[in-house]
Amino acid sequence: MDKQIVKPSILPGFMELTPNDQILFNKMLDTIRENYEKFGFLPIDTPVIEKSEVLLAKGGGDTEKQIYRFTKGDNDLSLRFDLTVPLARYVAQHFSDLTFPFRRYHIGKVYRGERNQKGRFREFYQCDIDIIGNEKLDIINDAEIPSVIYYTFKDLGFESFTIKINNRKILSGFFGSIQIEDSVEVLRTIDKMDKIGLDGVSDELSKMGLNAETIDKIMTFTQIKGTNDEILSNLKEMNVENDVFKEGLEELDSVVKYVKYFGVPEENLAIDLTIARGLDYYTGTVYETFLNEYPDIGSICSGGRYDNLAEYYTKQKLPGVGICIGLTRLFYQLREANIIESKWNSLTEVLVVPMEDCMEYGIKIGNQLRNEGIHTQIYLEEGKMGKKFNYADKLGIPYVMIIGADEVKSEKVTLKNMKTGEQIMRDIDETMNILKK
Amino acid sequence: MDKQIVKPSILPGFMELTPNDQILFNKMLDTIRENYEKFGFLPIDTPVIEKSEVLLAKGGGDTEKQIYRFTKGDNDLSLRFDLTVPLARYVAQHFSDLTFPFRRYHIGKVYRGERNQKGRFREFYQCDIDIIGNEKLDIINDAEIPSVIYYTFKDLGFESFTIKINNRKILSGFFGSIQIEDSVEVLRTIDKMDKIGLDGVSDELSKMGLNAETIDKIMTFTQIKGTNDEILSNLKEMNVENDVFKEGLEELDSVVKYVKYFGVPEENLAIDLTIARGLDYYTGTVYETFLNEYPDIGSICSGGRYDNLAEYYTKQKLPGVGICIGLTRLFYQLREANIIESKWNSLTEVLVVPMEDCMEYGIKIGNQLRNEGIHTQIYLEEGKMGKKFNYADKLGIPYVMIIGADEVKSEKVTLKNMKTGEQIMRDIDETMNILKK
Repeated sequence: MDKQIVKPSILPGFMELTPNDQILFNKMLDTIRENYEKFGFLPIDTPVIEKSEVLLAKGGGDTEKQIYRFTKGDNDLSLRFDLTVPLARYVAQHFSDLTFPFRRYHIGKVYRGERNQKGRFREFYQCDIDIIGNEKLDIINDAEIPSVIYYTFKDLGFESFTIKINNRKILSGFFGSIQIEDSVEVLRTIDKMDKIGLDGVSDELSKMGLNAETIDKIMTFTQIKGTNDEILSNLKEMNVENDVFKEGLEELDSVVKYVKYFGVPEENLAIDLTIARGLDYYTGTVYETFLNEYPDIGSICSGGRYDNLAEYYTKQKLPGVGICIGLTRLFYQLREANIIESKWNSLTEVLVVPMEDCMEYGIKIGNQLRNEGIHTQIYLEEGKMGKKFNYADKLGIPYVMIIGADEVKSEKVTLKNMKTGEQIMRDIDETMNILKK
Repeated sequence: MDKQIVKPSILPGFMELTPNDQILFNKMLDTIRENYEKFGFLPIDTPVIEKSEVLLAKGGGDTEKQIYRFTKGDNDLSLRFDLTVPLARYVAQHFSDLTFPFRRYHIGKVYRGERNQKGRFREFYQCDIDIIGNEKLDIINDAEIPSVIYYTFKDLGFESFTIKINNRKILSGFFGSIQIEDSVEVLRTIDKMDKIGLDGVSDELSKMGLNAETIDKIMTFTQIKGTNDEILSNLKEMNVENDVFKEGLEELDSVVKYVKYFGVPEENLAIDLTIARGLDYYTGTVYETFLNEYPDIGSICSGGRYDNLAEYYTKQKLPGVGICIGLTRLFYQLREANIIESKWNSLTEVLVVPMEDCMEYGIKIGNQLRNEGIHTQIYLEEGKMGKKFNYADKLGIPYVMIIGADEVKSEKVTLKNMKTGEQIMRDIDETMNILKK
């Protein structure tokens, strides 16, 4: 019977890696997780499928049409589109089981039916941390977050990156001071500075009906540059008579001060008054992170402070601060730009190759190696030696251990270094010591 | 404005853990992953959403109505219901990028809209390994698999468990020898031995129209007991004149012999002729694993040998052997039966508690601890000391490091062991040495 063959393929917008890239991806994921854990964040895991009424409690917005929503039986279901809404639901639901400040990390896949486009993914990993306070949360937490970003990206092997920081209160306070009541549209426009430039922003503001003087004030404000201390001085010298502005300035001042104590070098943290980040969510400190040599990649880690995490699920006031690394997109872009490359075709350190009639001894040697924590595969197929060496070569396994009649008789093993070609015959204990180095 | 509050809840049949249980769950997952990697298995990750025509290429079966299937735009989509079908598709699709035998592990969530029932999950983790050959795969691989099971469950902390093993060819060969052409139904019935007992199976076989003599032969056959060597001897002495039977017996004989070399003790591996496992998939060796003291939990790790992994996606013949640990269900049952318990409320080793005006020094000490790999959280909120100690207590953080004016002045730290209450003041290097022990 000839079966109908279905072409093996996946949907566009979904990332699937070959094992060598997967190993690299997993190493990045592990590094992020280790750093999050080192800072005292606790793991959580939430269902990918949730009730639509829960996931969409906040309603609408740009993302709603991107959501994978469907029914099964009587249930109206949606796939999570971020890890923040599930966190809000989780904290409200398990409130009495949690200890506050609640520091959680969550690494998992989320789903958005984005327009099909290179570098855009419909399934992607987010790696989130958030610190949630019960009723209040000290501003120093906002200074700790950049240090988590800093140490994580250092550990990921990046040298030159900038965590850009701002405070939404400074923006809204400033707008209030120049009688712009609804700052939402203005903020949205300023947020495009990176994409449409100074003139583009100026044009759009003019189309919104702002007069030249006001636009001038806005542009001057957003163009305040310099070291962090210079920017803070400039902002103070503006003497803006607005309480929200003052509060934001005080917060930013604190954050910049404390970030230093957390060990983040001056060059890795820069106040940038054009950073606004979304609009209906963040209320204070906001972060975006850029690779200095690859600005086109855009922000590789973003987040901020919010006043109330779970207002749709509980009356409890839960302020928090957090960040997200969108690892799938980041990985894709780093690979495309050849900034990272897969170094491992395998995680195996030793391929044991038993010759004819030496399988028993070979298997036992394999057990011994694994008992010592050495990642070991035994080549179990019959075949020519050349084929077996070729297998190790293709997988980039650094050592082949040859087990032949001589080795069995003398109770030794022959170890071949696949890189140098060097081959030595020693007893197993000595060989394991060599391998452990 | 008073917001409408949506009750925070998740769908029935979905597991969500509190952080302490999540830590335990993750530790089990990590142990499984470490063992899989130690045996030379490579990681892959596939999309949770696939094209329905691909995922359901094999068609129908009992699971089809359980599948989460929906449309988005013009696409007919399904959520993966196991990791085997995606593996088949993956191997066929990436064939030329893979090195055979291809050993892969895959740990991920799968989805089945099961009837709502205690201990049944609609979203659950599977932890799979498979070894895929190109055209052929040596029988010794079937002997290595039980050793992966053995070392993994040992590492998970289990002492007393039995890997039950059988070979489908012995079953189908035997049925062929007693003129039962369509052995599928008979196998399905035998597979229920654990649930409906000897009489139950006998009754059902009778209802299928088998005569008493045949039923008797079947029952006698499935009741062959003893040590592995005794069972193998019994099977040989039956002198069944059927090639498939003979091939199966030879394979089982080999597997039992080689499993010993792989270091699996006799008591952890038992031939059980009633194990059949599914029907249209496995073709040779089959495995099920049981906790000896908790047989009610059912099989905690199952799998087997198949002739052709990806026949729906490629003409390439790809025989393989693999197993699956259904971790979500296993975790649930172990927790319910109090076989495992969460030991950690936190992964943090030290909570640094700076007193008033000592935050700078406290933060810097925190950096030093983390640089040494010690998981460290700094208590950043203002408040009474009692509250801070209480926080460490609730989270089960073993050490609190107190930083007050005396400590800052003398450049020392005070370390409190939360278990013993013992408190010492030393310089930071000495304290870190104590912590590392």
